[in-house]
Amino acid sequence: MSEPTLNPTESTEDKGPSKNELKKRAKEEEKNRKAAERKAKEEKAAKAKAAAEDAADFAKQYYGKLPLHQSQERPNRPRNDVALLSEKVGENVLIRARIQTSRATGNKMVFLMLRQKIDTIQGILTVDEESVSRPMVKWVAGLPDESIVLVEGVVDKPKEEIKSATVKDVEIKISQIHLISAPEVRLPFTLDDASRAENEIENSEKQFNNVLLETRLNNRVLDLRTTTNQAVFKLQGSITDFFREFLSSQGFVEIHTPKLQAAATESGASVFKVSYFKGNAYLAQSPQLAKQMAIASDFERVYEIGPVFRAEDSNTHRHLTEFIGLDLEMTIEEHYHEVMELLDQLFLSIFKNLRAKCQKEVEIVGRQFPAEEFKWLEGPEGTLKLTFAQAVDLLVEDGVDRSVLDDINTENEKRLGRIVKGKYDTDYFIIDKFPAELRPFYTMPDPNDPKLTNSYDFFMRGEEILSGAQRVHDPQLLAERMRSKGIDPESMKGYMDGFRLGCPPHGGGGIGLERVLMLFLKLNNIRRATMFPRDPKRLEP
Amino acid sequence: MSEPTLNPTESTEDKGPSKNELKKRAKEEEKNRKAAERKAKEEKAAKAKAAAEDAADFAKQYYGKLPLHQSQERPNRPRNDVALLSEKVGENVLIRARIQTSRATGNKMVFLMLRQKIDTIQGILTVDEESVSRPMVKWVAGLPDESIVLVEGVVDKPKEEIKSATVKDVEIKISQIHLISAPEVRLPFTLDDASRAENEIENSEKQFNNVLLETRLNNRVLDLRTTTNQAVFKLQGSITDFFREFLSSQGFVEIHTPKLQAAATESGASVFKVSYFKGNAYLAQSPQLAKQMAIASDFERVYEIGPVFRAEDSNTHRHLTEFIGLDLEMTIEEHYHEVMELLDQLFLSIFKNLRAKCQKEVEIVGRQFPAEEFKWLEGPEGTLKLTFAQAVDLLVEDGVDRSVLDDINTENEKRLGRIVKGKYDTDYFIIDKFPAELRPFYTMPDPNDPKLTNSYDFFMRGEEILSGAQRVHDPQLLAERMRSKGIDPESMKGYMDGFRLGCPPHGGGGIGLERVLMLFLKLNNIRRATMFPRDPKRLEP
Repeated sequence: MSEPTLNPTESTEDKGPSKNELKKRAKEEEKNRKAAERKAKEEKAAKAKAAAEDAADFAKQYYGKLPLHQSQERPNRPRNDVALLSEKVGENVLIRARIQTSRATGNKMVFLMLRQKIDTIQGILTVDEESVSRPMVKWVAGLPDESIVLVEGVVDKPKEEIKSATVKDVEIKISQIHLISAPEVRLPFTLDDASRAENEIENSEKQFNNVLLETRLNNRVLDLRTTTNQAVFKLQGSITDFFREFLSSQGFVEIHTPKLQAAATESGASVFKVSYFKGNAYLAQSPQLAKQMAIASDFERVYEIGPVFRAEDSNTHRHLTEFIGLDLEMTIEEHYHEVMELLDQLFLSIFKNLRAKCQKEVEIVGRQFPAEEFKWLEGPEGTLKLTFAQAVDLLVEDGVDRSVLDDINTENEKRLGRIVKGKYDTDYFIIDKFPAELRPFYTMPDPNDPKLTNSYDFFMRGEEILSGAQRVHDPQLLAERMRSKGIDPESMKGYMDGFRLGCPPHGGGGIGLERVLMLFLKLNNIRRATMFPRDPKRLEP
Repeated sequence: MSEPTLNPTESTEDKGPSKNELKKRAKEEEKNRKAAERKAKEEKAAKAKAAAEDAADFAKQYYGKLPLHQSQERPNRPRNDVALLSEKVGENVLIRARIQTSRATGNKMVFLMLRQKIDTIQGILTVDEESVSRPMVKWVAGLPDESIVLVEGVVDKPKEEIKSATVKDVEIKISQIHLISAPEVRLPFTLDDASRAENEIENSEKQFNNVLLETRLNNRVLDLRTTTNQAVFKLQGSITDFFREFLSSQGFVEIHTPKLQAAATESGASVFKVSYFKGNAYLAQSPQLAKQMAIASDFERVYEIGPVFRAEDSNTHRHLTEFIGLDLEMTIEEHYHEVMELLDQLFLSIFKNLRAKCQKEVEIVGRQFPAEEFKWLEGPEGTLKLTFAQAVDLLVEDGVDRSVLDDINTENEKRLGRIVKGKYDTDYFIIDKFPAELRPFYTMPDPNDPKLTNSYDFFMRGEEILSGAQRVHDPQLLAERMRSKGIDPESMKGYMDGFRLGCPPHGGGGIGLERVLMLFLKLNNIRRATMFPRDPKRLEP
């Protein structure tokens, strides 16, 4: 009798629900209604609680963003240095620091890694009933990495050493924390990633982000914040300090010579041209000419620390278009080895001071750039000194074809460094008596062999870091040497005049600051030893 | 009969001489012959005597020109410092020095004024029978001024003080003297003329040669040899030493930032354009942007000593196109006066050190450039600090029309210096709170008056030597300030990025090294405080 329908449910509806079905539905509705009521109640309660908490947030004054710092007030509350907190267990301290990373556990606790230059320390924020509220913890957990905060808290001894921080024996129990400045943009990389050693990345099973040098240099302000880079540039400053200290003790005076020059001179290396009012000027490729003029001016012993500019299109690990030259020049009494020996003593004093006074920084850098410790000879015979001819012989003995050794190229320089290291166990040595054709016009010829010169190079880990010589102080010979290298003496009149007015015998050398830093620490690329490097492809930042 | 001739002599000849005439002639010839014979005899005798003297010149090995110094040998004979000879009376010494002047008396004695850097000493050569011969004295008397000689002799106490030398209580009795190097050209001026005080020239009845600044700068190598200039540049080196010493004690680290920049930015001052491979670069007008980036990189306290370049066509006594900037930048905890006060302490430390440790050099310079001693306040209230508004009031009280005092121009700056000197007896003071319109975009506005800024200038003898301020560290406000000065923030992206990554409040200042030196010593022209000055018209030597 019933018509077959396409929709059995409909037909069922048509028939009306059964009594059982109705009971079941009512129960469910009742259940849903109660659940909704409960939920609404809960939500209302939560909201009320949050509102109450917020309204009554006892910690409100203990956290938050500070107004823009315009020097509004000066309460004279001293800030602490995290490196010195190990001595202050139990004391209340105030520190300004970066948040390197933060980690919240539940909603009651945040761990912060706080950083000041080469040091990091752990800070802990735990909800309590006096000064740290839940909203405070939540707010802190939401602060982006690299925020600068003003933190107040008590120095505490943790149960276990904090391995991830440089200050391992104490931590800070934070009671107040305010934001001074926060990044506005997403960080291009984390400082943890930027601080990781390359061998750690290679050897670990974890997948780490490797921050490429190019990315670092494009975001140099961030990259420079790693404890490694803080240490690198602290060490750069120490090298110039040691350089000056030693030279000062030897009667040298610091000079400053102009980088703007009237003529593009000195040597074959290319120079940068500058528009100078209605004419042109050129950037000095070195203070060579000027420091020699200072000697002709009777300053006797001079040094200069300043930029030198090279317009060479060299895109290598060790060339920059602008770098810091450590230059010195001094009169000679009897023999140019007076200069060479003083330069040797200068380097030894820098090395010894780095080892004695900068151990912490060298260790920090070593974590990211592991290197065999830099070695030099300290016995009574002192630094290894080879002649150019002896250096060539060592290379020939090692299998290099003598016919290619008119000059020692970069590859053979490195090979020589390895040979010397193997044979003499030193990363530092001197080569003396270079052939005349390899040296600039102002180099004094050897008195016994006109094909050789009174000149020397210094090496660290198989790379040249200093070039120097006795200079020609006689104007006749100087003019002759210039002409032989295709330079018209009259094109360098100001320089020539110095010698025509009488000039004492003298010699000196030029050191590349960044190379010394790179090679001592084995940073493998000179850009890592320069705050904001310049090369043919980089003028920014 | 005789034909008149045009040539009476011929006609006379034709007649033949008279007898009297012949006698007269014969007498004369005889006389001439005898005279010639006598002369020849005399000459022969003189030659023979000279040859004999020369052949038997017992002093031959004790004087003469040395062969070109090519480091032929190294006998290890130490040289002496003339400044220390007062302690060596009776001793035999060996010194290398310049001959500033020489004076022969008869042919048996020569007095030499021998010079080493800031010191001069008298040397005497007297003919005797053991080591000093007449040819030796003659040869020495013929040596040109500014020759470099190697002198051996005994230190002796003269009967009277030698007023013309800096070493007054001893002289050298020369036994050997050899020439190392001599000028090849005529000196453009003597060192005595170049060393004379201007008031001495004006007040003396003698006619002295006044060596003009332009002549000095054209022959700077010679000019720099005066004891005055030797002292000036010794003092320049001391100022940078004191600068570094103080900052190092305050936790600063030395940095080096690039002078080659991608964009011509910062302020209205003109910049030099450099051809950079296929594009252009610009020379940094100051390390301002870079040192702020170092602060954004967390270096906390940095300083830099390096060249800054200004393409301004200013031909004044106090402008150079290239000078040495002493720049520093530091984080601020509470108030920018932390920076201002540190800078004040820095200057006081430089002044005190100059007075305590450089008395001799300051005195030497004072002989040629007489000046009232530089004064600063040392009482408990310390350095005088005026606000810009107070400085304007002082000028108005002194009669300057207030309507021209939106800015304080160079003339009023000097006037203010005189007012302050009269009222407070100090050559050194600070002006704080400059109007916003006078300061660059990166200057932090005053929290209470947006027309003012948290900025200051320091003055010496009525001239500005330092400019500094709290900087804007907030990227939003910084972009706003840039736009208000017509600069597109995106044109300085590398700089802006530093602030977008979070930057602590900070401030600093820039000091012109040459200005400090010029004003402390009252040299009256900045070119005298620069070894080889550069201005719109000078690129050489």
